[in-house]
Amino acid sequence: MLKLDLSKVSPFLPQDYVTSRQAKLEKAASMLSSHSGPGGEFTGWVDLPRDYDKEEFARIKAAARKIQQQSQVLVVIGIGGSYLGARAVIELLASPNYNLKKKDTPDIYFAGNGLSTDSLLELIALIGDRDFSVNVISKSGTTTEPAVAFRIFKAMLEEKYGKEGARGRIYATTDARRGALKGLADAEGYEEFVVPDAVGGRYSVLTAVGLLPIAAAGIDIDALMGGARLAMEELSAGGPENPAWQYAAARHGLYQAGKKVELLACYEPPFRFFAEWWKQLYGESEGKEGKGLFPASVEFTADLHSMGQYIQEGERLMFETVVKFAPKGQFIIPNDPDNVDGLNFLSGKPLSFVAEQAMRGTILAHVDGGVPNVLIELPAIGEASVGYLIYFFEYVCGLSGHLLEVNPFDQPGVEAYKKNMFALLGKPGYEDLKAQLEMRL
Amino acid sequence: MLKLDLSKVSPFLPQDYVTSRQAKLEKAASMLSSHSGPGGEFTGWVDLPRDYDKEEFARIKAAARKIQQQSQVLVVIGIGGSYLGARAVIELLASPNYNLKKKDTPDIYFAGNGLSTDSLLELIALIGDRDFSVNVISKSGTTTEPAVAFRIFKAMLEEKYGKEGARGRIYATTDARRGALKGLADAEGYEEFVVPDAVGGRYSVLTAVGLLPIAAAGIDIDALMGGARLAMEELSAGGPENPAWQYAAARHGLYQAGKKVELLACYEPPFRFFAEWWKQLYGESEGKEGKGLFPASVEFTADLHSMGQYIQEGERLMFETVVKFAPKGQFIIPNDPDNVDGLNFLSGKPLSFVAEQAMRGTILAHVDGGVPNVLIELPAIGEASVGYLIYFFEYVCGLSGHLLEVNPFDQPGVEAYKKNMFALLGKPGYEDLKAQLEMRL
Repeated sequence: MLKLDLSKVSPFLPQDYVTSRQAKLEKAASMLSSHSGPGGEFTGWVDLPRDYDKEEFARIKAAARKIQQQSQVLVVIGIGGSYLGARAVIELLASPNYNLKKKDTPDIYFAGNGLSTDSLLELIALIGDRDFSVNVISKSGTTTEPAVAFRIFKAMLEEKYGKEGARGRIYATTDARRGALKGLADAEGYEEFVVPDAVGGRYSVLTAVGLLPIAAAGIDIDALMGGARLAMEELSAGGPENPAWQYAAARHGLYQAGKKVELLACYEPPFRFFAEWWKQLYGESEGKEGKGLFPASVEFTADLHSMGQYIQEGERLMFETVVKFAPKGQFIIPNDPDNVDGLNFLSGKPLSFVAEQAMRGTILAHVDGGVPNVLIELPAIGEASVGYLIYFFEYVCGLSGHLLEVNPFDQPGVEAYKKNMFALLGKPGYEDLKAQLEMRL
Repeated sequence: MLKLDLSKVSPFLPQDYVTSRQAKLEKAASMLSSHSGPGGEFTGWVDLPRDYDKEEFARIKAAARKIQQQSQVLVVIGIGGSYLGARAVIELLASPNYNLKKKDTPDIYFAGNGLSTDSLLELIALIGDRDFSVNVISKSGTTTEPAVAFRIFKAMLEEKYGKEGARGRIYATTDARRGALKGLADAEGYEEFVVPDAVGGRYSVLTAVGLLPIAAAGIDIDALMGGARLAMEELSAGGPENPAWQYAAARHGLYQAGKKVELLACYEPPFRFFAEWWKQLYGESEGKEGKGLFPASVEFTADLHSMGQYIQEGERLMFETVVKFAPKGQFIIPNDPDNVDGLNFLSGKPLSFVAEQAMRGTILAHVDGGVPNVLIELPAIGEASVGYLIYFFEYVCGLSGHLLEVNPFDQPGVEAYKKNMFALLGKPGYEDLKAQLEMRL
């Protein structure tokens, strides 16, 4: 399913860059499979594609069907891992233009992932008088952005459908046992889905967190899980021939050799938000204790005409990871009898042939410019290939965090801005901090 | 119009970081205003908001009206500077959801900015049987991506409207005197607009390159130019109190102090593609000779829950530039009698108050984490403020490139991938290179 080419990394690293890390990789893989080591309590994602809750999975599919029947719009309320996974998969599998397409599944809008007044007002106008449902996703129910959005859309639903009608249109994905949203969902009788304790937000796309919106968009979540299951089986074997081990070793070697930025590149525009999901996965897992590769992304060939100059000749601080999907369709380049643009040497060739050579030519140009290149090749964009890639990136991320000797599954730094924000907002209990901060503004 | 706050940069730099660069800034400003020094022949953008072609500007507005009357869809074909400026301004001023809105201006789709077969096929399906026009933007007419796209959409127009009908729906923005597209446009009688010689692609958004699509979207291009004109007048004065000088000095000082990444952050989601435009502007201007800040971007508060961990505690290689717009509308946070989420201390407050405190709290948290912070505050998103910001970023970029002692207006590295691609595609004349490259694949 996935072909990893590290031949354009080798010139930049010692020949034994994988084998010299074998002991550490063995230990990392063992920690992941035994749910031990730093953050071991958050490694439920490792076995998820096999051990997921089958009863809940069936309920997700039923809820998706009900949403499709009842509503022209689904508002998905969540932030961070409760936002990016679903958006990434929906844009990649159903297109960034999903909402513009004629279809028998609802438009999907994401809310509660920011604090922009104008974006909120625009979203309310876009929904207009259409029928809508809400999937609110929050483990605690108290995170500011989604909580504020849920107050607003819950009130809109109750205004439009009455208290009882609203209850039948709200789907709460939250903690299994405790928390503000869990309590409310129990009291109101919302249909509930679970944010598992053992799966952190950035690893949660294949739980109900991601799967309900994904299924509502008409995506085959069985096939998605099947792709992930295949990856789980293939990668758990480990060993120096294993692509996950090899990629983790290459990333770690390049980082130690002074490459501080990993640039994820793809030639398919729908990959844009998948790259955003990937940035959270890696940035939040590795970016701690003053360490970690800075994750950035580009869309090729568009960005060869914007960031291309920097990649070719700027600071030599990066390596590139290219994700290449086979095309689904075919388009033959038409001939121009006048050959105005001088491109008749391409007439009759598939556009994908041009894309392929652009990629190969770019990799060689960047390598010549001092940018090591990892190439990940996959079949066409589809549920199985995307499910595989999700698990591959997750597993490599777990290995990478352990190689870096950080806890790959915590995120202590995310609290810093929240604490300051609460203080400045005048939340009771933060009076001292408020006074301190205001003196610095 | 624009307020620059560098108080959260000062702790990271020597006190005299502006004045110590005054002589260099004076020289840089003088090179820009006199169109001299490295790349001086490409500094037509400096006086553009005053000296633009008024006759062409009127034709742009007339053409936009004609497109609005004739077509439900405008396909804009271009790549790099012939793509990002228009998309950036349309998304920022008319929303990333522009095509989803009910409106009396056409949907706008961008084509010719990549080589994805599936995205091309999807675009053709999205246009469907609707009436459409094409704005093809290319100085030469031979750049592969837009040239291939133009072959395809020109043939579609001729099929649908006949040769003559197609001619009345194609708008060519190209070189004033020479080139493949200029020759074709003359022969066919397309309405023509000019890519000026003295304005490089990444600086071309306020020429016909950007203005025709922007005007077609119903945006007031007089007000946009007016904002840029104000910036031109205010910034050309120079001096150590000038925000452009100060920001350029801060960027250069931070770069010399080891900050290799500039992270552009905004709290408004429609800013996403404006940040992409900014990346090309700075990455392509500064990223050469092994130098230059790596430009990256985040959308807050969403990405505080993804990249936030890295920014707070990862490698200390970055500084942050935050762009803050005032909100246009207002939204009051509703009260919840049960206070389920514990947020009733916010009830009755405007959402923008929460956003403001989130921003202030985040800046302080990031500064405490060792990330210097530049704050740019503007009035609400509108033609004048966006026009001002465009010119501000352009002018600072020109100064910055000169401070870095590179030619800020060339892009020699962009050719490397093209040469390889042509060779691998079998373009006549590249036979030797083809053989060499294929041996390395």
